[in-house]
Amino acid sequence: MSMLRNIKLTLEYDGTDFNGWQIQSSRERTIQGEIEKALKIIFKKDIRLIGSGRTDAGVHAAGQVATFKIDHPLPTEKIVAALNANLPVDITILKAEECPQNFHAQFSAKRKTYRYTILARRARTSLNNKFCYHVTYPVKVALLKKEAASLIGKKDFRSFMATDPLVRDNPIPKDTVRTIYEIKIKKARDFICIEITANGFLYKMVRNIVGTLLEVATGQLPEGSVKKILKQKSRIAAGVTAPAHGLMLMKVD
Amino acid sequence: MSMLRNIKLTLEYDGTDFNGWQIQSSRERTIQGEIEKALKIIFKKDIRLIGSGRTDAGVHAAGQVATFKIDHPLPTEKIVAALNANLPVDITILKAEECPQNFHAQFSAKRKTYRYTILARRARTSLNNKFCYHVTYPVKVALLKKEAASLIGKKDFRSFMATDPLVRDNPIPKDTVRTIYEIKIKKARDFICIEITANGFLYKMVRNIVGTLLEVATGQLPEGSVKKILKQKSRIAAGVTAPAHGLMLMKVD
Repeated sequence: MSMLRNIKLTLEYDGTDFNGWQIQSSRERTIQGEIEKALKIIFKKDIRLIGSGRTDAGVHAAGQVATFKIDHPLPTEKIVAALNANLPVDITILKAEECPQNFHAQFSAKRKTYRYTILARRARTSLNNKFCYHVTYPVKVALLKKEAASLIGKKDFRSFMATDPLVRDNPIPKDTVRTIYEIKIKKARDFICIEITANGFLYKMVRNIVGTLLEVATGQLPEGSVKKILKQKSRIAAGVTAPAHGLMLMKVD
Repeated sequence: MSMLRNIKLTLEYDGTDFNGWQIQSSRERTIQGEIEKALKIIFKKDIRLIGSGRTDAGVHAAGQVATFKIDHPLPTEKIVAALNANLPVDITILKAEECPQNFHAQFSAKRKTYRYTILARRARTSLNNKFCYHVTYPVKVALLKKEAASLIGKKDFRSFMATDPLVRDNPIPKDTVRTIYEIKIKKARDFICIEITANGFLYKMVRNIVGTLLEVATGQLPEGSVKKILKQKSRIAAGVTAPAHGLMLMKVD
């Protein structure tokens, strides 16, 4: 019996024209679906791709990780070239590496970083409108930073977890405790980036956090709200969900 | 007789789907053409827009400047909003300001900065492929910097001026001396940015400089070539023209 190779891919995608990562039905365009199609063309058989996590419709990635198993000897650099040649331009495989048999993209992910980009000014942008959420009101960055500080550490983030009934085979987890290691907030010209690193994220957690932070930074919610919302452990307590297209999965460790 | 107002616009555009700045014929989509159409909708008359310079087909801008004259009292912030509402999403007006009667976008431009972005790696990108020139060979940044140093100062850049017969009403200038104030070259991950600031640029000068620098940095031309090419004062001496889509007009002073 030949040993299967376990291949780890690092990839980027423009999520605009995808219905998210995960295959839901054959009619919808998904990142997993497009890559599995390319793998089938290359290896002439059905190969299951496992992502480090599912990104929602419209969410982008600069450093998503996924794994698949093959018994074919194709060198990793040729796997990259063959996949890119068979993938649409909105998905790019950056790297393919051999990894241990027990490495699993989803369960081995110990640390992830997401970046949310906000454009805060009157005028839209023509240069990267697909990758930022445009708000026309002024945003107080100092207030964003102050509120965000309450999120750092090991906490129950249930209030920031979406409870959409739509989530198929994605049951509400029993354990809603996660650890946020770091939140970096930077302003460059009219763009504000909120970068959150954690050991894991609940469903729509980043977008709910960003939506809530924006409500505080614009005065719709009073200062100190984030702390109170965390304590309430209820989605109803938090602010609105920020739109998907401002979000990018940056890195998976 | 009422005094005409002279309005200065600062604007950005994604040049991908334009046949450059300047109106050439009514069938071609140009930035000037689209803005003049929007001005006509707003002010109900033909208004001539003067750009600080013409960008070629496919070239982008983050800070282009243009002027037009009107006798209408519409406040500048309303001009911005009205123009953006009447422009396609690939052009955005960032600012409108009153400026002196004798200010002329083209002749008053004293200093311009262009940025050329190169992606140097095997894999393409799915995140900003419209805004960078993808090369699959390694580029020695130290060599780029060393060669670029020869371009700084007041020099005759005739060797880097395109001599395309296509350039309609853009006769070859008698004076091909320009002053390059600064060239910044930065590498961030696999992206290399070459930013050139000068008192003016000859036709396709930046793209010819970048194409030549890349030939040196990849060993196709020997070190020191830029210095020799400058002396020869002939376009034939220089390297190939780098493609338009890597170029962005950043700033006009």
